[in-house]
Amino acid sequence: MTTRGRGGRTRSRILSAAAAGFAESGYDGTSVAEICRRAQVSKGAFYHHFSGKQALFLELLENWLEMLDRQLEGIGESRKPVPAQLLTMTDLIRDVFGAAHDQLPVFLEFWTRSTYDPTTWEATIAPYRRYRRFFADIISSGIDEGSLRPVDPDTAARVVVSLAIGLVLQGLLDTEDTDWGTVGRRGMEMLLQGLEKKE
Amino acid sequence: MTTRGRGGRTRSRILSAAAAGFAESGYDGTSVAEICRRAQVSKGAFYHHFSGKQALFLELLENWLEMLDRQLEGIGESRKPVPAQLLTMTDLIRDVFGAAHDQLPVFLEFWTRSTYDPTTWEATIAPYRRYRRFFADIISSGIDEGSLRPVDPDTAARVVVSLAIGLVLQGLLDTEDTDWGTVGRRGMEMLLQGLEKKE
Repeated sequence: MTTRGRGGRTRSRILSAAAAGFAESGYDGTSVAEICRRAQVSKGAFYHHFSGKQALFLELLENWLEMLDRQLEGIGESRKPVPAQLLTMTDLIRDVFGAAHDQLPVFLEFWTRSTYDPTTWEATIAPYRRYRRFFADIISSGIDEGSLRPVDPDTAARVVVSLAIGLVLQGLLDTEDTDWGTVGRRGMEMLLQGLEKKE
Repeated sequence: MTTRGRGGRTRSRILSAAAAGFAESGYDGTSVAEICRRAQVSKGAFYHHFSGKQALFLELLENWLEMLDRQLEGIGESRKPVPAQLLTMTDLIRDVFGAAHDQLPVFLEFWTRSTYDPTTWEATIAPYRRYRRFFADIISSGIDEGSLRPVDPDTAARVVVSLAIGLVLQGLLDTEDTDWGTVGRRGMEMLLQGLEKKE
């Protein structure tokens, strides 16, 4: 999809308007009419570019995941030991909050909706499973290189993903008192080193 | 609030009808009219018992949290070493899925809403902060009794709460392939023992 030319500019104006609307009033609370008003386009122009609100939202989600993917892959290519890679990845939580903080409630709304809407579920489960596999692969390499204990990689991936989801969710709710990026790094350090006191 | 007598029976019929509606169509997707239809009560009877849908939802949430609190306190009173207590508490994830699985998407919807609605935020932040303090206190006792490393209790509490939230959320999305109760226990074991291989 091109973003050049008049059509491309209209398209990105609609995307920005939708992102702003979703951030302010949520997905359900933002109608196509409201998005058109914000973007100053006609409904005709809107439906020329998007088949509906869900298609538009999925494109926002995809753009955001692509950005996250590029960052994660860059870290993977660094060839550092796996524990150091995992710590660097948790620093991404800080970037995620910077770049998409306004959009996180909408992703969450979408996740909620996916529990009772099969179409949304399909769109949500695919990237989720991809990230879980991504972390399972990293953890397997860590076991192979001897830097991680021989845990079950898939279970460990679920734990790493839990930590990320849980921190992002708490950060959404409790915005006032914490640098969640730092909590993420400390959390990953705890997961790597363990909480129990060793003799 | 009494649940005895005719009024009490009507009240609990409304609560059950709302829970069923929320589980099927979500909070936003369930109107007061629909709740009345399911409970076979008039709108007058509904508003005699509840000031509105939000008040009704908050009572469902409170009932569920009270059940969780009783279970958590029971474990705390066991006087076992803190690592064993934490492991037993993660087994609660299994019970949570059993008792309230249908209602979890609605709690999540409420959490989402709290990011842009101050009234909902107030209702959500209080129990959340209470659980975080609860876990910080347990972790402090673990440090005092010498079973846990001298970590920052509040950060460790955020990590434990992240793990719980993240596992519940993944379990909601990915219902098919995993015994999430077992993953919770393995996850807590990993957090306690650490992932890094010690020399």
